[in-house]
Amino acid sequence: GPESTNPLAYRYYDASRMVLGRPLEEHLRIAVCWWHTLCWPGGDAFGAPSLARPWHEEGGDEMAQARRKVEVGFEFFAKLGNPFFCFHDRDLAPEGTTFAESCQLLDTILDEVEAAMERTGTRLLWGTANLFGHPRYAAGAATNPDPQVFAYAAAQVKHILEATHRLGGENYVLWGGREGYDTLLNTDLGREQEQFGRFLSLIVEHKHKIGFKGELLIEPKPCEPTKHQYDFDAATIIGFLRRFGLENEIKLNIEVNHATLAGHSFHHEIAWAASEGMLGSVDANRGDPQNGWDTDQFPNDHVELMLGVYEVLRSGGLGRGGFNFDAHLRRQSIQPDDLFHAHIGGIDTLARATLAAAAMLEDGGLGEHLQQRYADWDGALGKSILAGETSLQELDRHVREAGDEPQPRSGRQEMLENLVNRFT
Amino acid sequence: GPESTNPLAYRYYDASRMVLGRPLEEHLRIAVCWWHTLCWPGGDAFGAPSLARPWHEEGGDEMAQARRKVEVGFEFFAKLGNPFFCFHDRDLAPEGTTFAESCQLLDTILDEVEAAMERTGTRLLWGTANLFGHPRYAAGAATNPDPQVFAYAAAQVKHILEATHRLGGENYVLWGGREGYDTLLNTDLGREQEQFGRFLSLIVEHKHKIGFKGELLIEPKPCEPTKHQYDFDAATIIGFLRRFGLENEIKLNIEVNHATLAGHSFHHEIAWAASEGMLGSVDANRGDPQNGWDTDQFPNDHVELMLGVYEVLRSGGLGRGGFNFDAHLRRQSIQPDDLFHAHIGGIDTLARATLAAAAMLEDGGLGEHLQQRYADWDGALGKSILAGETSLQELDRHVREAGDEPQPRSGRQEMLENLVNRFT
Amino acid sequence: GPESTNPLAYRYYDASRMVLGRPLEEHLRIAVCWWHTLCWPGGDAFGAPSLARPWHEEGGDEMAQARRKVEVGFEFFAKLGNPFFCFHDRDLAPEGTTFAESCQLLDTILDEVEAAMERTGTRLLWGTANLFGHPRYAAGAATNPDPQVFAYAAAQVKHILEATHRLGGENYVLWGGREGYDTLLNTDLGREQEQFGRFLSLIVEHKHKIGFKGELLIEPKPCEPTKHQYDFDAATIIGFLRRFGLENEIKLNIEVNHATLAGHSFHHEIAWAASEGMLGSVDANRGDPQNGWDTDQFPNDHVELMLGVYEVLRSGGLGRGGFNFDAHLRRQSIQPDDLFHAHIGGIDTLARATLAAAAMLEDGGLGEHLQQRYADWDGALGKSILAGETSLQELDRHVREAGDEPQPRSGRQEMLENLVNRFT
Amino acid sequence: GPESTNPLAYRYYDASRMVLGRPLEEHLRIAVCWWHTLCWPGGDAFGAPSLARPWHEEGGDEMAQARRKVEVGFEFFAKLGNPFFCFHDRDLAPEGTTFAESCQLLDTILDEVEAAMERTGTRLLWGTANLFGHPRYAAGAATNPDPQVFAYAAAQVKHILEATHRLGGENYVLWGGREGYDTLLNTDLGREQEQFGRFLSLIVEHKHKIGFKGELLIEPKPCEPTKHQYDFDAATIIGFLRRFGLENEIKLNIEVNHATLAGHSFHHEIAWAASEGMLGSVDANRGDPQNGWDTDQFPNDHVELMLGVYEVLRSGGLGRGGFNFDAHLRRQSIQPDDLFHAHIGGIDTLARATLAAAAMLEDGGLGEHLQQRYADWDGALGKSILAGETSLQELDRHVREAGDEPQPRSGRQEMLENLVNRFT
Repeated sequence: GPESTNPLAYRYYDASRMVLGRPLEEHLRIAVCWWHTLCWPGGDAFGAPSLARPWHEEGGDEMAQARRKVEVGFEFFAKLGNPFFCFHDRDLAPEGTTFAESCQLLDTILDEVEAAMERTGTRLLWGTANLFGHPRYAAGAATNPDPQVFAYAAAQVKHILEATHRLGGENYVLWGGREGYDTLLNTDLGREQEQFGRFLSLIVEHKHKIGFKGELLIEPKPCEPTKHQYDFDAATIIGFLRRFGLENEIKLNIEVNHATLAGHSFHHEIAWAASEGMLGSVDANRGDPQNGWDTDQFPNDHVELMLGVYEVLRSGGLGRGGFNFDAHLRRQSIQPDDLFHAHIGGIDTLARATLAAAAMLEDGGLGEHLQQRYADWDGALGKSILAGETSLQELDRHVREAGDEPQPRSGRQEMLENLVNRFT
Repeated sequence: GPESTNPLAYRYYDASRMVLGRPLEEHLRIAVCWWHTLCWPGGDAFGAPSLARPWHEEGGDEMAQARRKVEVGFEFFAKLGNPFFCFHDRDLAPEGTTFAESCQLLDTILDEVEAAMERTGTRLLWGTANLFGHPRYAAGAATNPDPQVFAYAAAQVKHILEATHRLGGENYVLWGGREGYDTLLNTDLGREQEQFGRFLSLIVEHKHKIGFKGELLIEPKPCEPTKHQYDFDAATIIGFLRRFGLENEIKLNIEVNHATLAGHSFHHEIAWAASEGMLGSVDANRGDPQNGWDTDQFPNDHVELMLGVYEVLRSGGLGRGGFNFDAHLRRQSIQPDDLFHAHIGGIDTLARATLAAAAMLEDGGLGEHLQQRYADWDGALGKSILAGETSLQELDRHVREAGDEPQPRSGRQEMLENLVNRFT
Repeated sequence: GPESTNPLAYRYYDASRMVLGRPLEEHLRIAVCWWHTLCWPGGDAFGAPSLARPWHEEGGDEMAQARRKVEVGFEFFAKLGNPFFCFHDRDLAPEGTTFAESCQLLDTILDEVEAAMERTGTRLLWGTANLFGHPRYAAGAATNPDPQVFAYAAAQVKHILEATHRLGGENYVLWGGREGYDTLLNTDLGREQEQFGRFLSLIVEHKHKIGFKGELLIEPKPCEPTKHQYDFDAATIIGFLRRFGLENEIKLNIEVNHATLAGHSFHHEIAWAASEGMLGSVDANRGDPQNGWDTDQFPNDHVELMLGVYEVLRSGGLGRGGFNFDAHLRRQSIQPDDLFHAHIGGIDTLARATLAAAAMLEDGGLGEHLQQRYADWDGALGKSILAGETSLQELDRHVREAGDEPQPRSGRQEMLENLVNRFT
Repeated sequence: GPESTNPLAYRYYDASRMVLGRPLEEHLRIAVCWWHTLCWPGGDAFGAPSLARPWHEEGGDEMAQARRKVEVGFEFFAKLGNPFFCFHDRDLAPEGTTFAESCQLLDTILDEVEAAMERTGTRLLWGTANLFGHPRYAAGAATNPDPQVFAYAAAQVKHILEATHRLGGENYVLWGGREGYDTLLNTDLGREQEQFGRFLSLIVEHKHKIGFKGELLIEPKPCEPTKHQYDFDAATIIGFLRRFGLENEIKLNIEVNHATLAGHSFHHEIAWAASEGMLGSVDANRGDPQNGWDTDQFPNDHVELMLGVYEVLRSGGLGRGGFNFDAHLRRQSIQPDDLFHAHIGGIDTLARATLAAAAMLEDGGLGEHLQQRYADWDGALGKSILAGETSLQELDRHVREAGDEPQPRSGRQEMLENLVNRFT
C-alpha cells in the first residue's frame, strides 16, 4: 500500500484492483523490454560498459548467452509480475554470417522463448526487427539509397513479423531509427518517402496474407541517431500514413521521451493520436528536461504521466497495446537489485498515474468543463458551419446582422490546473 | 558590386542581372511587410516602444497615421526598389467599433493603397487578415470554442481575400497564430481540427467563387503566442490539408525562424514542402540560435539561406510566391537610416544566397552525386519494388539467393559539404 | 484539507501549521508581486491586452489608477492571507517627465502604501527599481555605453533602496534585465563587466550608509529580452560577485522559470546557491517545458518544486527571503475569480511541496544515503587530500602500492527516486 | 586557391601566407586529435562500428594496433601538413591490468611517438588523461564519492602531465567529462566542488614542481555524458577557478559544440574568456543546431567561426594554444579518402575564417565603432564612476541637476552585421 516503506514493494500497483470496471492489469498491460533490461551493458558515448551481468559471461559464447537470457528474463518477469514482454530480433539472438543463418539462430532461441512463455504465462506485447544497429542500415533500411538494403530489411521484417505471429504477439512495431538523414546534401527526400511508403505497404500486405491479427504500430521520434528522422512525431506520421493510404492499417506507439525530444508534451502526442483514432501503444519512459538526447529513464513522475494516461482512458484504452518500458538503468546503477528498484518504481508510477487519471475521469469535472466550453457548437450556427451548410458570404451577413462583438470567455486554465491537482 | 564599401549600396542585388535565364528580381520577388517595417514600434515583453516614427504621430489620429504610412511606405519601397509588399488588414487601418466600420475604414485606406500601387508600380505579394491580435481571438479564430468567433473570422477573411483580389495580390496567406492551445485541459483537439478544416474549405470555396487566381498559402509555426500551434511545421500542415482534401488547393509559406523554432533547418522545411509540390512562398528572416522565441531578424547569413534557396531553384522557383521579410529592426536601432541598413542587408543576403545557389545548380556536381547515389533504384530490383510488383515473400527469396551482404557505400557528407563551400 | 472540493479553499496551506518546529507561514513567507497581479493587462507579443481590470479605468488618470491599485491590492492580500508583497517602482506609480517628478509621484503613492501596510499588517518582502522598461535602458542600465544612463539608474536605485528601507523591506532585489547584449558586434564585454561591478559596489556602499539591514539580492536569468544576459545563472553570478569582492554582500534570488531557461533544473540552482551560502529568496513560478521563453506561470506541480524546497529546508531556510510569485494569469483567464484560482493554487502547491520536503527531511533516509556515499572522505586518505597534505607524487605511490582497482559502487539513482516518491 | 575545383586541395590554407605580420600557420597552430581521427570506429548509441580501419585489425593485438596507429597517424599528419597533434593516454595505448602496467604500456608507445615526432617535426599541442571512459570513473574522477578514485585519477594525471612535458607539449588539458552528476539525489555539490578545487591545485603544484612551462587548460561543457557537468561554460569555470585561487594558473580550452550546447554562441565563449585574459586554446568543431548532443562535426561554416576568430586575433592570439579539431567523420563516411576531405575542409574553413577576421581587423571599422560607442566613459563622469570616486548620493545629485533625459543612441546592429558581411 501507499504507506509501505519497503523499497521493493508495490505501493500502488495491484494487478487485480478494479479500476473503471476492469482490473488494473488489463488497463496497463505492462511489458518489460528485452534490450534494455537484459542486454544493455551500461556503456555510453564516452564510456565503457559498467554493468556486470552474469548472463553476459558464459565464456563469450553468444548463443549460450542468449539461452541464459531467456532463462533469466522469464524468471525476472515472474518475480516482477508483468504480463508482457517485447523484443527486437537482435536482442534475442546474435546475427549470423548470412541472413539465412541469422534466421536460424533466432529460430533456435525462439523455441526456448516459446517454451518459457508457455511455462510462465508471460505473453508477447510486440516484436520488432532491429533495422538500425548493423552498419548495413547506416543510411536507412527502407529509405536506403541501395535497394538491396531495402530487400534485406524487408526479408528481416518478414521473418520477425512471422515470429511475432507464431508467439501470439499482440502487435508488431516498426521503429525507423535510421529512416531519415544525416545531411540533406546526399538525400532525396521525395524519393525516400516513396520507398518508405512502399515498405509499409508490403508489410501490411504480408500481415494480412499470414493472418496476423495484431496491430501494426509505428513509433515517432524526431532525431537521434539521425539528424532528422522522417517519423518525427504523431502528426507527421499520421500525415505520412494518409498519403500512402495506410491510415486504417497502422497505429502509433508513442514514447514519452520521443515526444519531448520533438518539442511536444507526452500528453499532446497521446491526445493527437487518440483524436485521429490511431493510438496503439505506449513506451513509458522519461527524458531529462535539461538534456537533448534520449535518456530513456524509468518513469518516476506520476504527475507527468497522468494526463497522458487520462487521454488513454478517456479514448477507451489501448486495445491490444500496452505500456512497455523503453527504459534502462543509469550507468552507475551497478548493484543487482537496482534492476528491481527501477522496474518496481516504474510500474508503481504507472499505476499511480492510472489511479489518479481514473479518479479524475470518474469525477467528471474536467470533461464537463470541456463539454460546456464548446457547447455553442451544438447550436444552430455551429452545426451549420460544421455540416458545410454555410459560406463566407453567409457568415459575413451573420456577423453584420449580429452587430455585437462575440462575448469573451475565460479559458479557466488555472482553475482547471488546480482541479487536476486534486487527483495527483 | 561586392567590393563596394558604401554601407547603403547593394553589393550583390542587381535586379536585372540574369541568373539561370531570368532576371534576379524575378527569382526573388522581394516583398517588404507593412507590419514590421511601418508599424512595429520597438516594444518588447519587458519594455516600452523605442522607435520614434514620424508617421506614428499625427496627433494620435489613427486614420491620419494610416494615410501617412501609405505615403511613407510606398516612398520607402521606391527607394529600396522592392517590387512587392505584404499586409495584414490591421496594419493598414485601425479597427472600428463594429465589423462593418472596420471594413469601411480599411476600404478607405485601400483606395489610397491602390492609387499608390498604380503610381509607383509596387505590387502586392500577399494580403492576410489579422486573426490573432484582438482579444476576441485569444482562444483562436477558426478553432475558437465559440462559433460566433469563427463566423467573425470568416467574415474578416472574406473581406481581406476580396481586398487582396481587388489589389491584384499574387497570393493570400493564412497564419493561424492562435489556432492551437495554451493548455490541453480546456481543449478538444479533435473538434478543433474539424473546425479548422471547415474554415479552410470555406476559404477555398470563396476563392473560386470570386475568381481569385492567386495561391492560398498557410504558414507553419510551432508555438508562440500559443503553447502549441496546430500548424506546427510543413509536414504537419501537409498531413492536415490531405486529411481535409485540400492538398491541391493550399500551398505553404515557409518562414526561416518558424522552421528553427520547430526543430528543423530552413533547408529541411523548404525541401519537404518542395518534395510534396506544395512550396508557395518564403518569409525570409532569421532567428537567434540561442533564443527560443521568434526574433524575426533580417537575414544576414547567406550561408544559412543558400541551401534553402538551392531547393527553391531546383524545384523550379516559387511561382507566384516570393521572398517576404518577416523581420523587424532591433529595439535599439532607433536611427532613421537603420531601416535602410536592415532592408539593404537583407536583400543583399538573399541575392548573394541566390547567386551562390544558382552557381551550384549550374555546376551540377551536387545533383549528379545525388543521382548516382540512388542510381540502383532505376535497376530491376528497385523498379519492381517501387512499382509494387514484389512482396516480402519474394524479397526474402531474393536476399537468400543473393547470399552476400549489400555493399556499404560512403555517404560522402564531408566531401559534399566542402563542395557546397566552393560556392559560399 | 486535501479532500476539499471547494476550488477556492486551501487544501494544504495552513499558515499556523507547525512544520519542522516553525509555522508553515514562516517557512514560506509568501509574497504577491505588484506587477503581474495588479498591473499585467494580458497582452503578448502578438496580441492586445485582454484583461479588463476595473482599476485600470479611472478615466485614464494614472495616479488615480495607482491609488486604486493600492486599495485593491491590499484588499486582495488580505483575502489571500499572504504576509508579504513585492514591487517595482514603476508598478506603483507612473513615470514623471523628469527624474525628480518620478520620485515625487512615487513618494506620493508610497505614503498610501505605508498606510495600507500599517492598516493591514502586510509587509514588504522586497522592492526593486525597474531598470529595463523605459527606452533609456534599451542598451542596459549599469552596462549602458552612456555613463549618463548609469548615473540615472544609480539615482533610481538610490531612491528605491531608500523607499524599501522606509517601508521596512526585508530585501532589495536587483534584476538586470537589460544588462547583457543583443549583439556582441557593438558590445565590449570586459568594459561592461567593470561597469556592472562598480554599480553593485555603489549600491552596497549606500546600503550600509543608510543602515538598511535587509539583504541585497540579484536574480539570474540567461536571456530575454536580451540575447544574452550577464546574470546568466547562479554559478555565473557567484563568479561575478567574487571577482568584484561582493560575495559576502549580495545573495541570490532564484526563479524557477529562469533556471529552466538557462538549461538547469530549479533544484540545481537552489542547491548551487545553497552550497555557496548565497541562497537568498525564490521567485516561485514555472515555465513551459516546451516553450523557450519566460511564461511565468503559477506553480502547480509540487513534484517539480519539492526537491528545491528540500534544499531550502536542508540549508536552514531562506532567512529574510521568501517565496514570491513572479507569475501572471494566462491571457485567456479573464474572469475575475481567475486571479484567486491562480494564487490559491500557487500557494497550495508551495505548501504541498514544503510538507513533502519536510517529511522527507524528517525521514532522513535521503540524507543518510548521501552521508554514507561520501563516508570514505572522512577516512585517512580523504582527509589528507582535502587538507592539502598530499601531492600527485604521494597519490601515485598510494595507487601503485594499493594495486587493486577502486571498488565500484552503485549510484542507487532509481532506488532514491522511488524513495522521493514516497513523499510526493 | 579559392578557384580550385580539386576537392582535396586547400583553397584558403597556405601555411606561409603572411596575415597580420605572421604566417597563417602560426596563427592557427592546427592540431589533429588522436581519438577521433585514428581511433573512433563509427559506432553510435544505436549502432555498431561502421568504419573499417586497417590499423584496427592486426589480429586484435592492442599494442600492435597502437604501434600501427603511430605509424599511420604521423604519415597522415605529414600528408595533411598540420604542425600539431593532441592525445588522451588511452587513445595511444590500451589500459593494462594494473595502474603500473597501464603506465608501462603507454610509455612503450610514447617511445615510438617521440621518435616519430623527431622524424617528422610534428609537435604536441596538448596531452590529456582520459578520466571518463573506464567504469571506475562512472561517478567522476576528482569528484568521485570514493577518494581512492580521486587518488587513481591524480596518479594518472601525474603520469600524463609528465608524458606531455617529456614530449615538449605546449599545453596540458583537463576535461572533466564525468565531473558533474546524473542526479542531485545522490550528490553533495558543495563537497564535490572542494574535491575538484583540490584536484586542480595538486596539478598546478606538480606542474611547477616538474618545471612544465606549458599552460594548463580546462574545457567547458554543460552536460553529456553527465546530466550536468560542473565545467558548464566559460563563466562558470572562471568563477570556480577564482574561488580556489587558480585564476592565474589555468586557462580555458573553448569548444564550439560545447559552447552551443550550453546555450551560448562560440563568439560569446571566446569573447568571455578573452575579456578575462583566460583564453587558452580552441577545439574547432561544430554541432548541429537542431540536435541536442555533441555531434563533433568538422567545421565547415566560416561565417560561424569568423567572429570567434576575430576575438582571438583582437586579443593577441592563442599564445601557446592552437586550433584542435575535436571532430570525427560521420558514421556513413566509410570511404578511406573521407578522412582527408573532412580534415582538408576543416582546415580550409579555419583559414578562410581567419583571413576574413584579419581583414576585418585591418579594416578597423568594427573596432572604431565600438570605441566611439563607449567614448563617453572616457569623459569626466565615466572616469569618476569607474575610479570609484562617486556615490549614489552624488549620482543622484548629478541626475537631478542635469534634468534632461540621457540622449538615446542607436545600437546600429543591422549596419554592423552588414559591415561584417563585407568580409565573409
